[in-house]
Amino acid sequence: MTGQRFTVIYHLTGKDTTALEKAKIMALEQTVEVNEELVPAGFIRSQIVGQVEQITAGKTGGYDATISYAVETTAFELTQLLNVIFGNSSLKTGIQVTHLELGDELLNHFSGPRFGIAGLRQQVQVEDKPLLCTALKPMGRTVAELAELAYQFALGGIDVIKDDHGLTNQPFCPFQPRVQACAEAVANANQQTGKHCIYVPNITAPMSQIWDRVYYAKQQGAGGLLIAPGLTGFDTMHTLATDPQVNLPLIAHPALLGSMVINPEHGFSHQVLFGQLLRIAGADASIYPNYGGRFGFTKTECQRIAEGCQQVMGNYPPIFPTPGGGMNLENIPEMLALYGNQVMFLIGGALYSRSPNLTDNARYFLSLVGR
Amino acid sequence: MTGQRFTVIYHLTGKDTTALEKAKIMALEQTVEVNEELVPAGFIRSQIVGQVEQITAGKTGGYDATISYAVETTAFELTQLLNVIFGNSSLKTGIQVTHLELGDELLNHFSGPRFGIAGLRQQVQVEDKPLLCTALKPMGRTVAELAELAYQFALGGIDVIKDDHGLTNQPFCPFQPRVQACAEAVANANQQTGKHCIYVPNITAPMSQIWDRVYYAKQQGAGGLLIAPGLTGFDTMHTLATDPQVNLPLIAHPALLGSMVINPEHGFSHQVLFGQLLRIAGADASIYPNYGGRFGFTKTECQRIAEGCQQVMGNYPPIFPTPGGGMNLENIPEMLALYGNQVMFLIGGALYSRSPNLTDNARYFLSLVGR
Repeated sequence: MTGQRFTVIYHLTGKDTTALEKAKIMALEQTVEVNEELVPAGFIRSQIVGQVEQITAGKTGGYDATISYAVETTAFELTQLLNVIFGNSSLKTGIQVTHLELGDELLNHFSGPRFGIAGLRQQVQVEDKPLLCTALKPMGRTVAELAELAYQFALGGIDVIKDDHGLTNQPFCPFQPRVQACAEAVANANQQTGKHCIYVPNITAPMSQIWDRVYYAKQQGAGGLLIAPGLTGFDTMHTLATDPQVNLPLIAHPALLGSMVINPEHGFSHQVLFGQLLRIAGADASIYPNYGGRFGFTKTECQRIAEGCQQVMGNYPPIFPTPGGGMNLENIPEMLALYGNQVMFLIGGALYSRSPNLTDNARYFLSLVGR
Repeated sequence: MTGQRFTVIYHLTGKDTTALEKAKIMALEQTVEVNEELVPAGFIRSQIVGQVEQITAGKTGGYDATISYAVETTAFELTQLLNVIFGNSSLKTGIQVTHLELGDELLNHFSGPRFGIAGLRQQVQVEDKPLLCTALKPMGRTVAELAELAYQFALGGIDVIKDDHGLTNQPFCPFQPRVQACAEAVANANQQTGKHCIYVPNITAPMSQIWDRVYYAKQQGAGGLLIAPGLTGFDTMHTLATDPQVNLPLIAHPALLGSMVINPEHGFSHQVLFGQLLRIAGADASIYPNYGGRFGFTKTECQRIAEGCQQVMGNYPPIFPTPGGGMNLENIPEMLALYGNQVMFLIGGALYSRSPNLTDNARYFLSLVGR
């Protein structure tokens, strides 16, 4: 044992008299899973059990409990790190993970985002201004139709063209021909424009098929990979982020992760889940539904996500907050004011509906961010 | 397209006037991810978009919406099935998945539990009466100590001895020597007793290591595998359940899944998550925290889980509801009354604390269920 510990801050709801007791129980639950009287003295009691470092009154009620854990309890595995942070306590009410302070040893072990903002900017050769992203949709379109959409958007100057995350390997639009056709369409457009648009296929897939899809996508010239860690597990993303043969930017989609943040008194804070945890797992961009769109995230929650994507975490690079989820082009000025330039805007439907000329629509989108 | 559809029932909170509208939006969100006016006529509109089949007033308020989806939208992948069921809608409030009706084609495709109640009973050679399970703990004990605990419990007649789910591959108790020693200890005890206790190591692990652990465990004589699909992703469990080389009963642990059920107006019902979904993913036993223990599940929620484990789902076998989470031996009579004989009782800490003689404690546990 190195004596190194990492800390997690939990927000606890409930009465003040019970906060310390609740924190102590969590420190046991997340490690030894037995009542205090069954914890053997010595090594286990002094080093394995979580330690309640601090309890303070929360700014808006409740209590903030800081608990530290020996880094070795995680076995240096992302699956077990998640378990120590919140595994069993996820089954209790009134507990929310609001901050992670992993320390350099754990952060370096997981290695974090490979590209980050700077790396992704280099890929698409856009300095300073916001990156623009759109999605190929809807599900049900043929391979040829999707490739044509990709071509039009790339011609208009979109930087990142991703599959809708529901496109996987449906019989009416199989993965391989889709990826081949869309990658080719984007490459053709790039040849005309001289730009560096990337096509980012969705490789969210069953365990047994994910590697085939990743390598196929890479071979066809995909410029990044879209993955929904809520569907595959966070470690799948981490494995892709660290595999030297993959070496592509990873864009995280929030599908199925909503339950972890939707209850303000339970789960993970938006900042931890869509910022800190995704960076630990190696995301280079974090898609989330912006406030005011089809979903219910608040402006403050979105701001916190952007902070989580960019706050100091050891030597991890900052990553792109990627607000989407039913944004309109009219929202861009307000989003620019909130997020500044270190952002990737994801606009899907609105880019289809503005006019039948998708290339024009894309150009208009660029003009809104001063490009 | 075969025309075959599967249905999901969602409970929607909120006003009656908005229920139909909300359901229609979900049917779009879970498939095409565009507003209705952008849905192309023909194939996409008639077959790809989810269809609202029924809206009825909920028994205790709110509305129940039945939505059907073309089976092909799932691409016959568990990751994408989860996405169609609840991917984007997880990011919205007031939506809970309360029932799945997949139909025979999808159920057969995923193949479900390989062993189920009958298969697991055969493995441990116990007919009719409840199975008894305990956990090796706490984290921090040495390999030799855990193996000795396993030996004592097996000698006392426990059927299933599992790792605590926090034991993975920590430097102070590595996976391989632990599995080897515990499997051997249980085999030795079986030789003395003539019984068929199984050791079930925890193989929850990063993607890159899970197969090594599974095959090592199998080679050492593990009689089943413990996995937490909330940490690995559900498809990892499904892959293990269908791999002919694995061919071991799978016991599901609920770590990190709590957020999906903790909010009564959001996520999945207990019955769907810990019953239906785990069976689709191939679990043979579903561990969950029983009411009245360290966690807050209610008696009704636990009953619903047991129903979800055993209700008719095509030709899937029923699986063991496995209530645990701080149960005391005193609770057994009440639990017997609730669950009957088709149950596996998981008792950890209480089996350590009753007396220093673990073999005696185990025998007493058996006597409580008439064995």
